[in-house]
Amino acid sequence: MARSDSGESVLERIVRILEAFTPEAPALTVSAVAERAGLPLATASRLVADLVAHGLLVRDDERRVRVGTRLWELASRASPTLSLRESAMPVLEDLHRGVGHHAQLGVLDGEEVLFVERLSADGAVVNFTRIAARLPLHASSSGLVLLAFGSTVLQERVLARPLRRFTSNTVTSPTELRALLAGIRERGVVICPGHLHPEATGIAVPVRDASGRVLAAVSVIVPNDGDAPRAVPALTEAARRIGARLRSH
Amino acid sequence: MARSDSGESVLERIVRILEAFTPEAPALTVSAVAERAGLPLATASRLVADLVAHGLLVRDDERRVRVGTRLWELASRASPTLSLRESAMPVLEDLHRGVGHHAQLGVLDGEEVLFVERLSADGAVVNFTRIAARLPLHASSSGLVLLAFGSTVLQERVLARPLRRFTSNTVTSPTELRALLAGIRERGVVICPGHLHPEATGIAVPVRDASGRVLAAVSVIVPNDGDAPRAVPALTEAARRIGARLRSH
Repeated sequence: MARSDSGESVLERIVRILEAFTPEAPALTVSAVAERAGLPLATASRLVADLVAHGLLVRDDERRVRVGTRLWELASRASPTLSLRESAMPVLEDLHRGVGHHAQLGVLDGEEVLFVERLSADGAVVNFTRIAARLPLHASSSGLVLLAFGSTVLQERVLARPLRRFTSNTVTSPTELRALLAGIRERGVVICPGHLHPEATGIAVPVRDASGRVLAAVSVIVPNDGDAPRAVPALTEAARRIGARLRSH
Repeated sequence: MARSDSGESVLERIVRILEAFTPEAPALTVSAVAERAGLPLATASRLVADLVAHGLLVRDDERRVRVGTRLWELASRASPTLSLRESAMPVLEDLHRGVGHHAQLGVLDGEEVLFVERLSADGAVVNFTRIAARLPLHASSSGLVLLAFGSTVLQERVLARPLRRFTSNTVTSPTELRALLAGIRERGVVICPGHLHPEATGIAVPVRDASGRVLAAVSVIVPNDGDAPRAVPALTEAARRIGARLRSH
């Protein structure tokens, strides 16, 4: 691939430009794009203009730049994420209707959980998850399930690192985390009262394919009020149904 | 941007590679990518390798290439499509629960309707819509609503072209189409029995922002059995609620 004087490929710079846009900063001036992407303004301007010409980025009325619908379309229409999500959706709707608050589906991506779907009720309890957003494995219920059933290489890597504390309930001791993971493997569920936010409890279970391999975690976020465990049977049943649908698709 | 001997930019070729992946062909050999993208095999191989190195594409167990989760994440997390979808989702869930079958949200993109969300029940009537898929404006209920409230330039362009017939009910005469669009503007709803498939009826209404501008169409697909019009009040109420939520966000 063509390289700039710095030896960096065009694709590398395009990726850094796309990475500049986040849920918190979905619309950026070209200067902000250049700054966030660590590119000279002239380079960023030229690449942004090319991306806009192809519809991958769009300019809004205030001359700020945003992710274009065309990029979303190209990334979504053949995405494995979308087929997982389509198999899971009717079940996730039933789960959300039964439990309320938030129902979500996450997959392991690198060393984080990436959320591919979330259904939220109005007035639901606080939730850090958003679609296409990530959370650390050790701190979220979905992440803990994916970590518990992940490879030992992954577990050792995560356990070897400093584990960020979000609340006084976040499990940050490697010893405690090992015990928690063993419990998840034994019971097939994790309940995390206040691990990420004092007011919320995350509950997650694994979704398995025909060979028993864990493909995803399905979870609900409910108030941290002692009633949370009552959601477990509905969650377990949802995971079973999603697994069955994935196998039949 | 760096250009090949043919004068084509790297970005141009990347876009053509991404366009090769569709819901019908989500996994492709590198040769198939080259063929679909109209690129020499060596060029396609090199670009695919670069895209894989950045996680935008991934190779599966059979050495076929797929859209990567990373591309979906970058395209989704700051996408205007996702914020529209998040505002609409609780309402779309209620609509789907009430009417059953399929409930969906579409936006005008170019001269087609692009579906940003779809909720489908198991055993629901046939539906050509998928998330991130497109339909022609003249043949789908959502498309007709977006066309009716679109610019006259758009309307004249669509009316000037041959209009594809999907069933004997598809409106393909410009005169009839003009009358249909006038009726939609007057009544704020369109009912399309069998326009795309003999067994299905699409019903769509516009979603408006604070200034009355039409931002999207919300629609349901139900059996073509005469009962379809009973879904209209629920649909109209859903569009009103989605509009109110968009304004308050």
